[in-house]
Amino acid sequence: MTTYHPPARDLQFVLQEVLDISASGIAGFDELDAETTSAVLEEAGRLSAEVLAPLNAVGDRQGCRFEDGAVTTPEGFGEAYARMREGGWMGLDCDPAYGGQGMPYVLHTAVGEMFVSSNMAFNMYQGLTHGAVSAIHAHGSDAQKATYLPRMVEGRWSGTMNLTEPQCGTDLGLIRTRAEPADDGSYRITGQKIWISAGEHDLSENIIHLVLARLPDAPEGTKGISLFIVPKFLPGEDGEAGARNALACAGLEHKMGIHGNATCVMSYDGATGYLVGEPHSGLKAMFTMMNEARLGVGLQGYAMGEVAYQNARAFAQERLQGRAVTGAENPDGPADPIIVHPDVRRNLMDQKAFVEGARAFTLWGAYLIDKARREEDEAAEGLISLLTPVIKGVLTDRGFETTVAAQQVYGGTGYTRDGGVEQFVRDARIAMIYEGTNGIQALDLVGRKLGAQGGKPAMAFLEMVKGFIKESEDDATLKADFLDPLKAASKDLQAAATFFMQHGQKSPNEALAGSYDFMHLFGHVCLGLMWARMARIARNALETDSPDDAGFYRAKIATGRHYMARHLPATALHRARIEAGADTVMALSPDDF
Amino acid sequence: MTTYHPPARDLQFVLQEVLDISASGIAGFDELDAETTSAVLEEAGRLSAEVLAPLNAVGDRQGCRFEDGAVTTPEGFGEAYARMREGGWMGLDCDPAYGGQGMPYVLHTAVGEMFVSSNMAFNMYQGLTHGAVSAIHAHGSDAQKATYLPRMVEGRWSGTMNLTEPQCGTDLGLIRTRAEPADDGSYRITGQKIWISAGEHDLSENIIHLVLARLPDAPEGTKGISLFIVPKFLPGEDGEAGARNALACAGLEHKMGIHGNATCVMSYDGATGYLVGEPHSGLKAMFTMMNEARLGVGLQGYAMGEVAYQNARAFAQERLQGRAVTGAENPDGPADPIIVHPDVRRNLMDQKAFVEGARAFTLWGAYLIDKARREEDEAAEGLISLLTPVIKGVLTDRGFETTVAAQQVYGGTGYTRDGGVEQFVRDARIAMIYEGTNGIQALDLVGRKLGAQGGKPAMAFLEMVKGFIKESEDDATLKADFLDPLKAASKDLQAAATFFMQHGQKSPNEALAGSYDFMHLFGHVCLGLMWARMARIARNALETDSPDDAGFYRAKIATGRHYMARHLPATALHRARIEAGADTVMALSPDDF
Repeated sequence: MTTYHPPARDLQFVLQEVLDISASGIAGFDELDAETTSAVLEEAGRLSAEVLAPLNAVGDRQGCRFEDGAVTTPEGFGEAYARMREGGWMGLDCDPAYGGQGMPYVLHTAVGEMFVSSNMAFNMYQGLTHGAVSAIHAHGSDAQKATYLPRMVEGRWSGTMNLTEPQCGTDLGLIRTRAEPADDGSYRITGQKIWISAGEHDLSENIIHLVLARLPDAPEGTKGISLFIVPKFLPGEDGEAGARNALACAGLEHKMGIHGNATCVMSYDGATGYLVGEPHSGLKAMFTMMNEARLGVGLQGYAMGEVAYQNARAFAQERLQGRAVTGAENPDGPADPIIVHPDVRRNLMDQKAFVEGARAFTLWGAYLIDKARREEDEAAEGLISLLTPVIKGVLTDRGFETTVAAQQVYGGTGYTRDGGVEQFVRDARIAMIYEGTNGIQALDLVGRKLGAQGGKPAMAFLEMVKGFIKESEDDATLKADFLDPLKAASKDLQAAATFFMQHGQKSPNEALAGSYDFMHLFGHVCLGLMWARMARIARNALETDSPDDAGFYRAKIATGRHYMARHLPATALHRARIEAGADTVMALSPDDF
Repeated sequence: MTTYHPPARDLQFVLQEVLDISASGIAGFDELDAETTSAVLEEAGRLSAEVLAPLNAVGDRQGCRFEDGAVTTPEGFGEAYARMREGGWMGLDCDPAYGGQGMPYVLHTAVGEMFVSSNMAFNMYQGLTHGAVSAIHAHGSDAQKATYLPRMVEGRWSGTMNLTEPQCGTDLGLIRTRAEPADDGSYRITGQKIWISAGEHDLSENIIHLVLARLPDAPEGTKGISLFIVPKFLPGEDGEAGARNALACAGLEHKMGIHGNATCVMSYDGATGYLVGEPHSGLKAMFTMMNEARLGVGLQGYAMGEVAYQNARAFAQERLQGRAVTGAENPDGPADPIIVHPDVRRNLMDQKAFVEGARAFTLWGAYLIDKARREEDEAAEGLISLLTPVIKGVLTDRGFETTVAAQQVYGGTGYTRDGGVEQFVRDARIAMIYEGTNGIQALDLVGRKLGAQGGKPAMAFLEMVKGFIKESEDDATLKADFLDPLKAASKDLQAAATFFMQHGQKSPNEALAGSYDFMHLFGHVCLGLMWARMARIARNALETDSPDDAGFYRAKIATGRHYMARHLPATALHRARIEAGADTVMALSPDDF
């Protein structure tokens, strides 16, 4: 049995103190003072803790049921979905022209952390809809927007993304699903799609599938893919769900986790579809959604780490086993709580330091998306494009590791279903795979993003780190614990980038063999930068006359020091591996394995 | 759907070339020439691949069924158990005086790897029996041995270990189960035990529980625990299973994995038990079994890594996605096999380098147990006691990571039940927890083993590493790739040990905060030593006129170089963390988390 406590204070700290969003100068953000965002977080936190979290184990145990093409979601999901819709949570950051509340994406992300932590499988239904809304908003015609967006923003209709086919996962150039033009300007879509999250369910009145398919005149490969809206029920003249379309869910996948979410095999049998944007530009349309979608998955990584950590912490504070090596701390009890043991404490500090750093990193990323989108800020767009594979790859890898570490605190109870924490491990595992495996994230980072715009965003990032160090360099309280480690780590990052520049062109394997290490090296520098920023803010708060909660700020600094002392030095190892090149990696031929 | 291919050639390489067991001088081992061990491995491999592996997914899906106190194992388990019994596998290394075959423990371990890789949950039934046989053999009376051992060695009766109670996992001093003396010299055992693997099932005629309990006059804590034999059916006058004893399985745990093994809640309600050894010396008796039991769990770690790696390799060789960055390697197909991609190759090499190093390490450990036991070699006993927590903790942590890495190669398929590899992840996870959590292993290593006998075994290990480097130092082919990295790593180990010696006494938290890192640092040096040894042997084999399989030896050297270049440098990171001490780890008070 697990519990969830919304980390509202920590989220507020990042929004209001670290990012200082109300002073950002972005239009409309000045209204988002501490009181306003606090009220939003409180409300979302209540929904998460009281409605979503209690359904998390239910969803895992019952899973989704498939019968005669219909999917039944677990008990209580329908009611929770209605609660979420009524609260207006689905359109929090959507365009007011279509019924959204127009709030910042960064606030949507902060709220999303709580929804994911409390029930990741459930939250995917609306998460997929959110992605489809963004795609239609960016690439749909005015008529398409008018028909689909208001109903999807409201949550009455939901959405999906249909990319994968049996022969084609990462390599979308292999897509075979066909789209034949019909006389009325629509298309007939035929093919099979697999691993379609929320592809069929009983939560919404209609499901709007965004489907990648090939037109008859499509060029081979990724340049011949178009994007279609393929609704489960075709909109009638009043715009509402009408005739059933020629598509069906052919079955559900049985998975390691996220049992509460329906992962569907979808069959399109001459289904009516509507082209979104230009022919053959479907992949490009998908790509413009990618930063947002991948940031959302990175968020899943650390949000699962957060809830696992919360429960491990509570277990460690309560479970009595053994005595502190420095003398009993609970002398009247049969034993001390296991949090007294240094290795348990080390484990919990590792979890805490990762999750809090990851939260700041993700919300900073979301803030950059706001900035890029609302101010058409090209520097912000370049930076978030660079950081997106790092957020997705690093935070899901380390988020998963955090759930495993939390499970370890529980001992045997952690391995039992009743303990509950093992579900977090199983659920978190998918985030390393979907929305581009983490190996693909590393490839995207090294093969595409690092050299984008002649390396401008990468250099801007390194300058930002240098700038932070420089403006704080006289700050004796930060120097040894924060600035020096950050400087050393950013040197490793620079050296690794230089290695790639020197070798990548003439021998791409040299660079790609180190791509995974580079992604993690980069992630460490990002989290190191976040911790140095947070420490400075916390220190400043403590220096004011009467900081409201000195304990909070002191814990923040202590946690940051732990990250800098024990995790940031990993950059040297990643650099050593990168500089080892492709030699041993490619030494064996495929048949020698 | 997964497959299993017994790695007979690799096992033979370690037994005959690395350990050279037939030349070890241990009595009886000289008969174990290559032909003999090869025949044993072949036979066990066939049983593993043809009988056990096909039941692995069956066991996971069906699990064990509990009804009216009886446990039904999955379909096919009964027949497989009979096959294993008929083959004499259960007594392979047991005392011939009780029907065993008297083979070395190291051969039992090599065979055990295949049994675990093919079906971990199934193999636990006989694994637990083996542990109980060892305990009775070491501590039982002659009459107890005569009654229990022949039937258990034969596999007609099985065994268990009953330690854990709801309030007491790691801290056995909290045990409450009572043992009241009866007039006939036996005892009445009353209490509840949890997480009892193979506690009740339908595979054997009788189940012999080894139960830790307290006598009425027992001192508090761990010094008041005694060990009892508590059979499910009391042996009658003919020694065979007779009257039902007052004990019952009260239910099964629902677990993350190893569903094929029954994890039982056991109730003892005045059950008849027989004292093993002296009163109040139960924990000591258990401890003498510990090296063997923990080595067996470490073996589970890498054996699960092995089977996961095998399947990931096959998937990567077959799955077509994308093109090699250096030009198409399968130009006639729609795409190249994903093994062409450097990051996939890097991942597979990481897995392979770990598993093969771990195999050598574990079999070396088993060989030391043979040496300690059969020759009463105190140096071997000291060394294996030191290495045991490293084998258990490091190989289960990294074995689990290997299953996760293998799952990643599969992409989406890795997350589905049908893909099969996700079961390896779930099954492997338990090995980090049971038989002492890995945090406890680290504590045992730093708090007990490192300073044992005034540090003699630890110094002997370091001298062994130095000796190896010294005797090879003129060997130009080994120097840069193997000897230099090993030297650097062992320096880190030495420095970390020195740090503990300087700080451990006056401030034990300083040492214990680094215990987990020390365990992994130590593990890297052990695997580095194994790889350096294996590389030297492989190089020598290649220099003979016509090595039988040059490809095998060349791959061995290439894999070793990968380990040394990309994994051994982790020792510097672990050392840095250790030298960071307890400062940040213990900075927050338990309530500040």
